[in-house]
Amino acid sequence: MTLVADILSGDRLALARCLTQVENDTPQGRAALDELFPHAGRAHLIGITGSSGAGKSTLVNQLALAYRRSAPRDKAPRVAIVAVDPSSPFSGGAILGDRVRMRDLAGDPGVFIRSMASRGSVGGLARATAAVTEVLDAAGYDIILIETVGAGQSEVDIARLAHTTIVIEAPGMGDDIQAIKAGILEIADILVVNKADRPGAENTVRALRNALELGHPAARAMQPKGHHAALESQTAESAAPAESELWLPPVLVTVASTGEGTAELVSAVQRHSEYLKRTDLWKERERARLQTALEDLVTAALVERWRETLADETYRHVVHRLLERKISPFEAVSGLVRDQKPRNRPD
Amino acid sequence: MTLVADILSGDRLALARCLTQVENDTPQGRAALDELFPHAGRAHLIGITGSSGAGKSTLVNQLALAYRRSAPRDKAPRVAIVAVDPSSPFSGGAILGDRVRMRDLAGDPGVFIRSMASRGSVGGLARATAAVTEVLDAAGYDIILIETVGAGQSEVDIARLAHTTIVIEAPGMGDDIQAIKAGILEIADILVVNKADRPGAENTVRALRNALELGHPAARAMQPKGHHAALESQTAESAAPAESELWLPPVLVTVASTGEGTAELVSAVQRHSEYLKRTDLWKERERARLQTALEDLVTAALVERWRETLADETYRHVVHRLLERKISPFEAVSGLVRDQKPRNRPD
Repeated sequence: MTLVADILSGDRLALARCLTQVENDTPQGRAALDELFPHAGRAHLIGITGSSGAGKSTLVNQLALAYRRSAPRDKAPRVAIVAVDPSSPFSGGAILGDRVRMRDLAGDPGVFIRSMASRGSVGGLARATAAVTEVLDAAGYDIILIETVGAGQSEVDIARLAHTTIVIEAPGMGDDIQAIKAGILEIADILVVNKADRPGAENTVRALRNALELGHPAARAMQPKGHHAALESQTAESAAPAESELWLPPVLVTVASTGEGTAELVSAVQRHSEYLKRTDLWKERERARLQTALEDLVTAALVERWRETLADETYRHVVHRLLERKISPFEAVSGLVRDQKPRNRPD
Repeated sequence: MTLVADILSGDRLALARCLTQVENDTPQGRAALDELFPHAGRAHLIGITGSSGAGKSTLVNQLALAYRRSAPRDKAPRVAIVAVDPSSPFSGGAILGDRVRMRDLAGDPGVFIRSMASRGSVGGLARATAAVTEVLDAAGYDIILIETVGAGQSEVDIARLAHTTIVIEAPGMGDDIQAIKAGILEIADILVVNKADRPGAENTVRALRNALELGHPAARAMQPKGHHAALESQTAESAAPAESELWLPPVLVTVASTGEGTAELVSAVQRHSEYLKRTDLWKERERARLQTALEDLVTAALVERWRETLADETYRHVVHRLLERKISPFEAVSGLVRDQKPRNRPD
């Protein structure tokens, strides 16, 4: 396939085209992913999430710039930015956020920016984001910054893709207890209080540190991120990190508008990457991520096959009886799932 | 089954026990739901969601009180409150929020309060909430207030359960544009600015009204809430509401701590209920809700059956090759889904 060869040789237009196919889950997209998958698995995936208005996009820009300026252009890590907006119907390219970014990063062939928009469902978006990330990884991007807009389950799902998850807050963004309750601290490897030049920054830092101490973070570091890991018995065989090797998420302060604190953030990300590799958690997270992706795909395939083999009439009949409350949902399910093979019409 | 008979005769302890079984999805819970399902379908399900700190719980209390005081105790609508917290590990009963509630509502046999906590996944929680709602409906509660803590996809999923969805904001709770982006306005039938005695309330009301006008709300009212409705061709046959029958979500103001505005909110809910019934949208929402529930259960059943029939060894082998990037996720899926029937060990 020449598209794949073009991508592997660094053709940006081929890459953009392929990403569209992969996002839309076309047969060509799937074929490309099949071919590209063996070339992926080298990038450091970094998820960036947090409350709206915390300044995520600006901080992601600064991170990208910092990586690109860490060495001469041809030696510096290549950086891809995947901006995921579950609520946006726009996808693929030149949304406003990207244009703003371009002023800083335009013309640098070592930077690739991609917007991901709603795929109709959170699950669909997480699946598409995972696939896009694999393609960028195969295309040779060393650092992939996955930025999610908004907060909620979608962010948690998308954060599961990353090796390192950065959670960004801003001073006075509301009740910190809520942030903890929302489970956002659960997924943080690094916490950032951005807009640290604003009043209240110290309070926010303190609240986050307290929350971390209350939240038994040490226990967390011993577990892989995915929730399907228990299925794979080999997980239990791998060495658990020693007590001294637990990761307590650092709380950093930044002012993304000026770049203040970006260097410290890059160092923390580097330390986290070294920690993951030293403790074998890097591999665990890869495993959890790929298994989650696999089980999502299996579920989708099972449902698809079920739909194909189910007679329309059967489905309509069962739904009708359900709506009339003649049968319960469980009775409806056993009627529908038993009816797997194509069959003669019911009378 | 005596448990079911006890529930139908108004036994609160039997109800509480049954809800625990249903929440935990035990065989007894499923059997009870099968028996209770034909008795349900009469309650008005009201979802209450919105930003954290907006005062949802207090407003839900006030709503419950208002319903209970609308007539003599034995004539007033019976009210159930289902408080759903996707981030809480506590469930079933006496969490702090419930205790606080009890001061107002304690001892009233026409009120039943239930907390729902995390079921490990958002999908699981939405499923459990739907089941709990059916039981309360069958048990004769006329008004079921489903309150979701937090904001995000989980709220949207849970809101899909309701006939009427109330979205609560508070003044100065951050960027209103974000609220719109988060899709929360999409699901609102009634908008409430609570804590209306605080500065900035008028601005919030204005921002929400502007957002509604920009958001083409009229188009929305013509569609059922569920996203699976397209599957059911009968949907298209039902009468679409006339132009004059579109519902523009009202923006109300309340001060839940004093009860101010609660009466107006109850009236708006009543108007919405009449609107739904007049336009047949009530039935449409029931249909969409039950179909969504059905398809979730079907998916769970398909995955369960797949797991049961899949040889552990096959699964482990495929995952191993995936992790080594010898096969792509799609190739892995075709290996796993083809392998449906119990089979001899691969060598």
